[in-house]
Amino acid sequence: MFRTHTCGELRASHVNQTVTLAGWVQTIRKFGSITFIDLRDRYGITQLLFNESLNTELEKNPLGREFVLQVNGTVAERSNKNPQLPTGDIELLVTDFTILNAAATPPFTIQDDTDGGDDLRMRYRYLDLRRGAVRKNLELRYAVNRAARNYLHQHGFLDIETPFLIKSTPEGARDFVVPSRMNPGQFYALPQSPQTFKQLLMVSGYDRYYQIVKCFRDEDLRADRQPEFTQIDCEMAFVEQEDILHMFEELIKSIFKEVKNIDYTESVQRMTWEEAMWTYGNDKPDIRFGMQLLNLKKPDSVYRDRNASPELIDGADFKVFDEAETVIALAVPGAAEYTRKQTDELTDWVKRPQIGMKGLVYIKCLADGSYKSSVDKFYSEEKLKAIADACGATTGDLVLVVAGAEERTRKAASELRLELGERLGLRKKDEFKLLWVLDFPLFEYDEEGNRWVARHHPFTAPKPAQIQTMIKNEPSIHDASKYLDHPYAQIKANAYDMVLNGNEIGGGSIRIYQRELQEKMFAALGMDKEEQQHKFGFLLGAFEYGAPPHGGIAFGFDRLCSILGGSESIRDFIAFPKNNAGRDVMLDAPASIDDKQFDELQIRLDLKK
Amino acid sequence: MFRTHTCGELRASHVNQTVTLAGWVQTIRKFGSITFIDLRDRYGITQLLFNESLNTELEKNPLGREFVLQVNGTVAERSNKNPQLPTGDIELLVTDFTILNAAATPPFTIQDDTDGGDDLRMRYRYLDLRRGAVRKNLELRYAVNRAARNYLHQHGFLDIETPFLIKSTPEGARDFVVPSRMNPGQFYALPQSPQTFKQLLMVSGYDRYYQIVKCFRDEDLRADRQPEFTQIDCEMAFVEQEDILHMFEELIKSIFKEVKNIDYTESVQRMTWEEAMWTYGNDKPDIRFGMQLLNLKKPDSVYRDRNASPELIDGADFKVFDEAETVIALAVPGAAEYTRKQTDELTDWVKRPQIGMKGLVYIKCLADGSYKSSVDKFYSEEKLKAIADACGATTGDLVLVVAGAEERTRKAASELRLELGERLGLRKKDEFKLLWVLDFPLFEYDEEGNRWVARHHPFTAPKPAQIQTMIKNEPSIHDASKYLDHPYAQIKANAYDMVLNGNEIGGGSIRIYQRELQEKMFAALGMDKEEQQHKFGFLLGAFEYGAPPHGGIAFGFDRLCSILGGSESIRDFIAFPKNNAGRDVMLDAPASIDDKQFDELQIRLDLKK
Repeated sequence: MFRTHTCGELRASHVNQTVTLAGWVQTIRKFGSITFIDLRDRYGITQLLFNESLNTELEKNPLGREFVLQVNGTVAERSNKNPQLPTGDIELLVTDFTILNAAATPPFTIQDDTDGGDDLRMRYRYLDLRRGAVRKNLELRYAVNRAARNYLHQHGFLDIETPFLIKSTPEGARDFVVPSRMNPGQFYALPQSPQTFKQLLMVSGYDRYYQIVKCFRDEDLRADRQPEFTQIDCEMAFVEQEDILHMFEELIKSIFKEVKNIDYTESVQRMTWEEAMWTYGNDKPDIRFGMQLLNLKKPDSVYRDRNASPELIDGADFKVFDEAETVIALAVPGAAEYTRKQTDELTDWVKRPQIGMKGLVYIKCLADGSYKSSVDKFYSEEKLKAIADACGATTGDLVLVVAGAEERTRKAASELRLELGERLGLRKKDEFKLLWVLDFPLFEYDEEGNRWVARHHPFTAPKPAQIQTMIKNEPSIHDASKYLDHPYAQIKANAYDMVLNGNEIGGGSIRIYQRELQEKMFAALGMDKEEQQHKFGFLLGAFEYGAPPHGGIAFGFDRLCSILGGSESIRDFIAFPKNNAGRDVMLDAPASIDDKQFDELQIRLDLKK
Repeated sequence: MFRTHTCGELRASHVNQTVTLAGWVQTIRKFGSITFIDLRDRYGITQLLFNESLNTELEKNPLGREFVLQVNGTVAERSNKNPQLPTGDIELLVTDFTILNAAATPPFTIQDDTDGGDDLRMRYRYLDLRRGAVRKNLELRYAVNRAARNYLHQHGFLDIETPFLIKSTPEGARDFVVPSRMNPGQFYALPQSPQTFKQLLMVSGYDRYYQIVKCFRDEDLRADRQPEFTQIDCEMAFVEQEDILHMFEELIKSIFKEVKNIDYTESVQRMTWEEAMWTYGNDKPDIRFGMQLLNLKKPDSVYRDRNASPELIDGADFKVFDEAETVIALAVPGAAEYTRKQTDELTDWVKRPQIGMKGLVYIKCLADGSYKSSVDKFYSEEKLKAIADACGATTGDLVLVVAGAEERTRKAASELRLELGERLGLRKKDEFKLLWVLDFPLFEYDEEGNRWVARHHPFTAPKPAQIQTMIKNEPSIHDASKYLDHPYAQIKANAYDMVLNGNEIGGGSIRIYQRELQEKMFAALGMDKEEQQHKFGFLLGAFEYGAPPHGGIAFGFDRLCSILGGSESIRDFIAFPKNNAGRDVMLDAPASIDDKQFDELQIRLDLKK
């Protein structure tokens, strides 16, 4: 060992002990013939004192930042204690030192608030990883990993490894593929998830499975997506939805406790998908704050049987609202006094291409009890009050209204709510609110491709009461624009998403385990028998030999860590992440390969001009 | 939940309780109007008793093997207890049952001693996995996983995930590559190990890293190799070889304790590579038994300074020995009475092409004190006795001697020793003997390619005292056949293998951490500066910014599990293994991919005729 103690270990109780430390030079401060050095390792920082007897030695072997140093010395009490530092009561009187390795000047400072830009830090990721801020993220990631494993172990789950070199069965997302040298002309695929394998393990009787496992998707990378990502992947047999919800909300609570010391004693809220869409405009509501949406016109695709409040805006001859498919209002607490400049800025904000609204209507609920609005011309104060009341707005609040095509308007209202929640400080980083979103539609309709698409995946079961709806009706549709009238559009999935602070952190479902139903599902997605057999023959086969009822869930491990760490970016929680072009700029990968490799794999490039 | 208890849970203390079980029908036995069913799940087997009131129900819904059944009933004490079964004191008086899923007749019996051949079982792996024998293997695998993680956690190691989509830098083994759609013409590679990443983590100060991680090698599969395999991968900074040996022999001991309840209190034996080659003929000796080799002629490539015993065979004018490069003897305990048929069979055994000897000389140390040999003509009884004595043979033993070219003869002697150890029952499955093999040569010489090859890998450091030998000498060789005379041939690596019962279960080394030495190593392997920079620029760069001394080890997780489970085959310990052609016969992978996939990846096939 090059050390007797770490740089985070020494305390007043060690005074007068002779010790050896090793670590990196963080700072060098000279005072006349005395030199102070902060020596850093993963565990902390210890102050070293080189007194004048080492001057000659130091001059012969000058030190610099990030040099790797081994020092022998005696622990001494500091006259000038540093209460900020766990080791701040002591310093090490150095008797002799060895430079284990020199260091060139780093391209950016190794500090929490570094001067290095993103590109530079990624190129020198091995230096970036030295920064305390990044180290804490990876330590948190390991703590989450450990807490998850401990909980799952205690509950009888087995970690069973599933293969990485599998078969390409693209459904939705693209597979990464791997040419097989031993089977020329054939390819493996990297798994998008271990979905079918964990289901097979249930058929095999393993009952409670988990894995913390890398998955791969060859998609154009939106911000904060990675081509390889990690899942906490779980599956249980002989369970119903309720069992899964209970098992895994307790998993997340135990992670909260172990990692953040948070006692999440309240029960986890639940909401149907329709309720989420109706009230929050999206399927992963951030319920840390209110500002629920008021649907002034009933949207087509959610809650077709629930009443909206069109009477509040009807008959005013305000064309924008009258002609809009959807009109949605929300109340912003305490914002009635926004200036013209502020409401104009909000209007600009919703008119940005990403939001795409044509304008923004406001109603101010003023302190004197009056109402002032950008649509005073069309609506009497009484009518404005009625709208504000319906939104739950009270004196001092600001009501905002957007109108337009259904999907876009709902999305705009949802984004506006989140933006204002952010601006008003209602989305607190240290507050954690879990939510189960339930009862998703089983299918979506791809109007372009004129076919049903599995909203979750093709292995998700419908609600038990709707199995017959699925089996007895043919999936085909004549008029694609009227797909909402097809019985399949009303089928709800036995699926669930776990949402944390407005982020989907996990999702799963009760699975189909009957061959007939699975075949019907594949058929609904447009797969003929031959394709079913080619792609999923093994699963259909497995369902013939005694498949138990089962279901599971997968958590996005990278995302879960980033939220627990209070960061927006999953990249900060991955040791060696890729950039938005899927490149590792440190390795400079991907890269060209040798002719010999092409030759052995019996493939060649076929680059488009 | 579909059950209140598992099939392994009920005991006499549950008698009279009303319970619900779910599981698979293992056996059905009818006695008149009564039916007994053994219901199986992962946890055990419970006997169900269907009395005559359920007859009509059973006739309407006939059950078969592997049906998935849910039953309600009352626990009753058995009149006829089965002490073999943990649940053997009770049975369940079924009140009603539900068939959760039917099952076709399985293609082989779901029993420990199944009638299914290897191919059939692999095609229906999901059924094979139901067999208790396979389930125990996967449970053992999880127990090893868990024990390793617990030990490493207790010793401050962090599990840090390294990337799977990296850069192709083939050294020795072939990489699997993955075409990048977003970077046309470029490829990722799948990691053969996280070697360089774990070293970067040491440079980053993480100090103690581990991962239980999939690795990939595109090699022609010898028996019992898999293209994807799992490693327990570890690295430490600020350590010397001794620290690593201690840390990881304790890891394996703690796995022994946790998984097998074995107290491995003795210290782990150590042996240099030269000693292993000299005494056992291979670098992973099985030290559960003796039968050490006696070198009657000094081999060229090991222990050039140690004396062999040529005087024992010289001067007898026995051409076979006189002309052979290498002559090796070993004593087989208690085999002096072998018949002619038996010695002939052994002779045939060493003459098989896999062993490749031209013959086998024996000396019998008979009970009457006389010696009888197949080379009586050439050697007097006195000389035979001298050879036998030098081998450590005593009355009743049989000495066997092989002769020929160095490598082949050593290998033959080693194989012969193992074969006889096996036949004599000296290789006990329930005995576990650990051994460190140390001081490997740093380089091997590839006479065909006329270049040095890193015996372990290019990141392994030489012994500290030999660093200067490496730096000061040029690697090039004029006469390849005389490579043993080059100073590089004498450089020993700071490397170590852990051997368990004659299997290498782990290997590692202290790493190079100085840029100059690493460049010299790359140069010795025939890489010019440009290639070094292209392939390993990031690592050479990292060594510029304060790399600490570090080293590590990787254990072959599949192999370790199979040895602990007492099996020869790692495939038995992998949930979904591939066959020797690298195929998953259950999935039927690898397989062809769509034109669309070729088009998007901008590659095409280039199949050889």
